[in-house]
Amino acid sequence: MQFVEKIVSMIELIGIVAFAISGAMVAIQKKLDIFGVIVLGITTALGGGVIRDLLLGRVPPMMFQKPIYAILATIFAVATFVFACIVGEVKGKQKELYASIINFLDAIGLGVFAATSVNMVLTNYEHAGIFLSVFMGTVTAVGGGVLRDMMSNEIPLILKKRIYAIAAIIGSVVYYILWNCNVPFEVTMFSSIFITVIIRLLAKRYRWNLPTAN
Amino acid sequence: MQFVEKIVSMIELIGIVAFAISGAMVAIQKKLDIFGVIVLGITTALGGGVIRDLLLGRVPPMMFQKPIYAILATIFAVATFVFACIVGEVKGKQKELYASIINFLDAIGLGVFAATSVNMVLTNYEHAGIFLSVFMGTVTAVGGGVLRDMMSNEIPLILKKRIYAIAAIIGSVVYYILWNCNVPFEVTMFSSIFITVIIRLLAKRYRWNLPTAN
Amino acid sequence: MQFVEKIVSMIELIGIVAFAISGAMVAIQKKLDIFGVIVLGITTALGGGVIRDLLLGRVPPMMFQKPIYAILATIFAVATFVFACIVGEVKGKQKELYASIINFLDAIGLGVFAATSVNMVLTNYEHAGIFLSVFMGTVTAVGGGVLRDMMSNEIPLILKKRIYAIAAIIGSVVYYILWNCNVPFEVTMFSSIFITVIIRLLAKRYRWNLPTAN
Repeated sequence: MQFVEKIVSMIELIGIVAFAISGAMVAIQKKLDIFGVIVLGITTALGGGVIRDLLLGRVPPMMFQKPIYAILATIFAVATFVFACIVGEVKGKQKELYASIINFLDAIGLGVFAATSVNMVLTNYEHAGIFLSVFMGTVTAVGGGVLRDMMSNEIPLILKKRIYAIAAIIGSVVYYILWNCNVPFEVTMFSSIFITVIIRLLAKRYRWNLPTAN
Repeated sequence: MQFVEKIVSMIELIGIVAFAISGAMVAIQKKLDIFGVIVLGITTALGGGVIRDLLLGRVPPMMFQKPIYAILATIFAVATFVFACIVGEVKGKQKELYASIINFLDAIGLGVFAATSVNMVLTNYEHAGIFLSVFMGTVTAVGGGVLRDMMSNEIPLILKKRIYAIAAIIGSVVYYILWNCNVPFEVTMFSSIFITVIIRLLAKRYRWNLPTAN
Repeated sequence: MQFVEKIVSMIELIGIVAFAISGAMVAIQKKLDIFGVIVLGITTALGGGVIRDLLLGRVPPMMFQKPIYAILATIFAVATFVFACIVGEVKGKQKELYASIINFLDAIGLGVFAATSVNMVLTNYEHAGIFLSVFMGTVTAVGGGVLRDMMSNEIPLILKKRIYAIAAIIGSVVYYILWNCNVPFEVTMFSSIFITVIIRLLAKRYRWNLPTAN
């Protein structure tokens, strides 16, 4: 179990880094200063987890007990800032490349946080049903991004972007089912993350649309 | 008491349906897709209750223990979406009719959540004073709408609309007073809801204004 | 200790008044009615403390246990409103004077809440490290303002304004260090507040800038 926890922690760090960079990129586009970049990086990376911990009554939230999370998010937000300073304004073709990178990182974060949160709920709450598990997985995965968008005065992506939260919901459901079928931990974790990421990327690539009313 | 609880639960469901539809209508106006409509419907219907439960330390919040609430909100958000698809774009006179319907549903939700939340506080916290009771009633009643407006990038109605939160405050005070006068439960509940709804509707109808500074 | 607590309470009241006025001024500029002015005044004055209490699991938050806080915020929000009615629209040179007053009050609130929150964490959580202490000090100091800006549909100042949260961070660190060096309470409290206020005012006065990426 010790070993499993270490794996989960390491996977979470990947998600934090991915979201910290995505939050920092949005802040840079909004012409915020270095401190604004750090705040938005931390908010995006850790906001979903804080919301989850508050909803489950796990206080103070994890991020206050393991400062390494906030430190890591800060380091990568600053690194993104420095990188943006060196590269300068982005134009034309490059812009698309950047958007692809952000989108990929965002998908990774989405998949990681959905899977690790469902895992956390199932590990700690013996009688957790599918509703609580999947809801917590989804809230953690999309929460940081929602806070980021609300703070930068945008309508949250989750409300507008194709198949965003739905990817996290499906990944969470997959985790819940495989866990309850006693599939080995590594397979469960990997499958769930993989499915979320692949759905999100395919939705973006092929511009899958959900219907609007008119 | 068993009986009373059933009544309260049923009244709450009415409020949830009313708010889910109102949230869905706002989402449709913003041209969000079906998933955005569901998210905003759930947020409006259940957001106030989640904020209340967090403030009182009742975790995980009610909505995670009774999935029926979220399911009901989802069903009615989807139904609103389907209805909007069938009817198509709304114009002229019809628009006013729709606005009246939304406004009526919103007033119902406001009255229901104020009354049931004050009831919950008084039932569960023996020494709850008027301040805690009324504040929780008001926060629950307006919380979902505030989240809805913040997520759709609007200044919350509560800050702009005539006599919105004030109706909920008065309804909550009425509940608190009648409860402490040992008025029968049914009368207390009905009076509180009725007063909130009627104040809100009259304020809308006769365009009651609160003063602004200049 | 009784004595110390009284001092802290009184200092907190100063911060609440300062932030209530600042929130009310923003609401008046947004042409909100008297109720909107009160709501934004209360949110700004008490929002940071509520977020802190939720994160630490202290529920119901302080403001529900000590109604005097909300009452005081309401009184000063109303007073600000009345004052604005009497003075009428502000123009030209006067505008700058007003901006300076708001800015000064805001700096006071920032310093007060950072210092009293770090004090609260250190008093109540024996093993609180620098990370938890400083984070809570900063969140409390800037939280009300962030909520105010999100509700009035602006990008939060913390993301844009020069050296805003950084002043609160430095003040919190100073409190943490002096406390751990067993410096007398009065000196610790005063130094921390003074440093936050002075950094914030100097940053404003001399337009200290943090770098942006391009």
